[in-house]
Amino acid sequence: MSSSDIFLGETIGTAVLILLGGGVCAAVTLKRSKAVGAGWVAIAFGWGFAVLTAAYIALGPSGAHLNPAVTVGVAVQSGEWNRVPVYFAGQMLGAMLGAVLVWVCYYGQFTAHLTDREITGGPGAQATAAADRQRSDEPGPVLGIFSTAPEIRSPAQNLATETIATTVLVLAILTQGLTEGLALSGTGVLITALVVVGIGLSLGGPTGYAINPARDLGPRIVHALLPLPNKGGSDWGYAWVPVVGPLLGGAVAGGIYRLAFA
Amino acid sequence: MSSSDIFLGETIGTAVLILLGGGVCAAVTLKRSKAVGAGWVAIAFGWGFAVLTAAYIALGPSGAHLNPAVTVGVAVQSGEWNRVPVYFAGQMLGAMLGAVLVWVCYYGQFTAHLTDREITGGPGAQATAAADRQRSDEPGPVLGIFSTAPEIRSPAQNLATETIATTVLVLAILTQGLTEGLALSGTGVLITALVVVGIGLSLGGPTGYAINPARDLGPRIVHALLPLPNKGGSDWGYAWVPVVGPLLGGAVAGGIYRLAFA
Amino acid sequence: MSSSDIFLGETIGTAVLILLGGGVCAAVTLKRSKAVGAGWVAIAFGWGFAVLTAAYIALGPSGAHLNPAVTVGVAVQSGEWNRVPVYFAGQMLGAMLGAVLVWVCYYGQFTAHLTDREITGGPGAQATAAADRQRSDEPGPVLGIFSTAPEIRSPAQNLATETIATTVLVLAILTQGLTEGLALSGTGVLITALVVVGIGLSLGGPTGYAINPARDLGPRIVHALLPLPNKGGSDWGYAWVPVVGPLLGGAVAGGIYRLAFA
Amino acid sequence: MSSSDIFLGETIGTAVLILLGGGVCAAVTLKRSKAVGAGWVAIAFGWGFAVLTAAYIALGPSGAHLNPAVTVGVAVQSGEWNRVPVYFAGQMLGAMLGAVLVWVCYYGQFTAHLTDREITGGPGAQATAAADRQRSDEPGPVLGIFSTAPEIRSPAQNLATETIATTVLVLAILTQGLTEGLALSGTGVLITALVVVGIGLSLGGPTGYAINPARDLGPRIVHALLPLPNKGGSDWGYAWVPVVGPLLGGAVAGGIYRLAFA
Repeated sequence: MSSSDIFLGETIGTAVLILLGGGVCAAVTLKRSKAVGAGWVAIAFGWGFAVLTAAYIALGPSGAHLNPAVTVGVAVQSGEWNRVPVYFAGQMLGAMLGAVLVWVCYYGQFTAHLTDREITGGPGAQATAAADRQRSDEPGPVLGIFSTAPEIRSPAQNLATETIATTVLVLAILTQGLTEGLALSGTGVLITALVVVGIGLSLGGPTGYAINPARDLGPRIVHALLPLPNKGGSDWGYAWVPVVGPLLGGAVAGGIYRLAFA
Repeated sequence: MSSSDIFLGETIGTAVLILLGGGVCAAVTLKRSKAVGAGWVAIAFGWGFAVLTAAYIALGPSGAHLNPAVTVGVAVQSGEWNRVPVYFAGQMLGAMLGAVLVWVCYYGQFTAHLTDREITGGPGAQATAAADRQRSDEPGPVLGIFSTAPEIRSPAQNLATETIATTVLVLAILTQGLTEGLALSGTGVLITALVVVGIGLSLGGPTGYAINPARDLGPRIVHALLPLPNKGGSDWGYAWVPVVGPLLGGAVAGGIYRLAFA
Repeated sequence: MSSSDIFLGETIGTAVLILLGGGVCAAVTLKRSKAVGAGWVAIAFGWGFAVLTAAYIALGPSGAHLNPAVTVGVAVQSGEWNRVPVYFAGQMLGAMLGAVLVWVCYYGQFTAHLTDREITGGPGAQATAAADRQRSDEPGPVLGIFSTAPEIRSPAQNLATETIATTVLVLAILTQGLTEGLALSGTGVLITALVVVGIGLSLGGPTGYAINPARDLGPRIVHALLPLPNKGGSDWGYAWVPVVGPLLGGAVAGGIYRLAFA
Repeated sequence: MSSSDIFLGETIGTAVLILLGGGVCAAVTLKRSKAVGAGWVAIAFGWGFAVLTAAYIALGPSGAHLNPAVTVGVAVQSGEWNRVPVYFAGQMLGAMLGAVLVWVCYYGQFTAHLTDREITGGPGAQATAAADRQRSDEPGPVLGIFSTAPEIRSPAQNLATETIATTVLVLAILTQGLTEGLALSGTGVLITALVVVGIGLSLGGPTGYAINPARDLGPRIVHALLPLPNKGGSDWGYAWVPVVGPLLGGAVAGGIYRLAFA
């Protein structure tokens, strides 16, 4: 694979990943979406099939990492680090593009949701509260469509959960190569996608399972930049957890693979 | 593939697609259906497995496009346009047949739903309101079983959502050929079906995801023609959006493929 | 395949099919089951994965028909009718065995459900009502765990729905052979199972989708024979519909295959 | 496969199985989890995809039994018993490790849940009740995240349900080898995982489907050892059922295979 193929594949693939993954959060969260209230099963399958679609598209050009934690895991396992920056760059650009596309697809729903008095307070209160929130770092009412937040704010536990969940994901991807004909195949992509559904159902409860630094950081930046009314803060205080945890998890998975499976 | 095989395959396949896809909308919507209220997860999986079943049946005879947007995407990608009219003709005929079959399968449920006073108003009000609605273009109470309607009527956003969602679908189908053994295989059909589940969960919120001109226009024509009591209008004012958006999306996907993946 | 392999495979396979298929109905219906109220999505996936499990087990010995409608469809398509009675016999015996196993697995739940006053009436009323019901043919409170019943009793529509739904199922199975490597493979079984999930979600609303004469008739006989308290009637007046409809559907699918796909 | 590969594969694989399987029970049960109340469909798919992930990882090193019932079934079918103790040891160690990892990932949620007055009683009552419960063997409020408990306590029925459900599971795994290219392949793992989803939906209602002695006994031991506040008893009176039933089921499946399929 050439560097430009990798960059293009990761950019397009990660954009599709975040378009569909952020999309299902928007679909289930926002007022005047047909899927509002569809719940956690919809979110878990939505993110899993987002991985399926994106990985399927990017498999040829870039091998479909779509996640810096996967790139780190592959690098630790293989000892090859020179393509890592190209992967990271495509992933971050793609994640930001994808978050913008969610905003385009759900434009009217965002507006309806963020100008609803019951959600943001009365008309007078709204302006004040919104101004307050704009200045503060407190997570705003649609931040969850862009990036993750913990139910219980506890950096040690949150980091542990993200690290463990990502270790499982990356280990499952690395061990593909051990099964005849599975690596970089349609069946491999399908199983990886269902592994993501499973991780969401099982380990998503405490932190909302970022398990991917680009998936969390890229859209958080877009949330900070977009002209959304009453959007509130972007919760930068938490932003390091879903970056560091998944990178750690990817490295741990690469290490386990080298020790136990190589 | 001969033109007659293509026509027959697309007709039978698209009929099955709409029978099952319209079927799940009927199942979840209509009074006295066992699945009433089963919700958005049921609809998204129902449409996805409708694609699975239909594509599985039509794969041999016609390659299972079943969607003018896919046909346009393939034509833009390959530069071959001569079979396009045959595909379109089979798809439109099949979509209309499928919508009629939904009506046959749910005949009693349609009648029960459309003659329910709580849904259509009191006995006197009902006759008047029905007559009014019959004359107007306002979407009637069962139109959603036939064709799509936006939650927020905003042609620009609605068109954007349909275009973007279809681009993702057609790009995923076109890139099949890049993965060893995936194009026109059972695993390829399965993954495409789950991509459709994913697009429904993630991008179906604003417009109900037509992502297929025949899927929307064919059943809308049938809705206008069927002798359903109190059926109301067929919302022709919106009908161009789920035709133009998906065709645009298919062409965009074909273009991205030629630029980035060829 | 020898006749004894076919008989054994169909018996074991259909027993597993009905154990799991009847099982999910029991799980969702009966008091004091952990899955009570899990709804239509659970039922549709439960029946689909019942097909997956059963077909997977019976694939080697008998080709996993597990359904007289499939056997008829294959016979019409191939012109070979001599093994049909062996298939039918195994399917009916297996379906009855499976229904007995559901009763064993949910023994305490059946008792708790059928002796609950809110479900069957007060203590005095209960004895009378139960006696009345025992004599009548009216469907009893747990008959739905054994066999199907329509929401709206309309023989013509009910027969049409069962015929159309079964045509789709059998056509999807017959066209497997057209796709390289799909017939009698793991992927083929998986897709067929998801087709059954789709048919349930989409066409199960009016009649509860028997789409298999043995699946309906075998357990209905068991319902009539089992010593269940207050069980009520077995609804023999409806029993011909889920036998005749699916057999018709199988034959129609075989015919469509010969005309359009051969 | 060497004994050390088998031990390592089974330990890591079963740890992942219990981490994700116990995880989904925690996610759906515990206060302040994002998935709380997601219901039975989430649990059934969560456990199925736990099997998928774990089996996918352990397929290369150990063949991914991950379940003493599978090991017994394979031993009865093949007549080879000498590796059985190595499999059992890895499975038990892995199951205990996995249960500890669930506790780490949901640490704050466990604390929030077990110190909630509505769940454990008022502040005074809480201390007394907790002390009482600590001494008793009655199942505590989070035991269900570790091990199974029947809805209706009836050893004969509970044992029958676990035996029958495990027979279906192990028979489906053993017959993999009969289908070309399915044994120890990605598609085989995927189908096995969906079989587990199906068994959960269909036969999980009465006992919560242990269908795996290590899955139940390992986490029960961890529940007894962990310093959880107000945790209550570990229900040792029931612990033999989900051990004996699945082992019996595995042996029965191995026997059926030898008699009917070999």
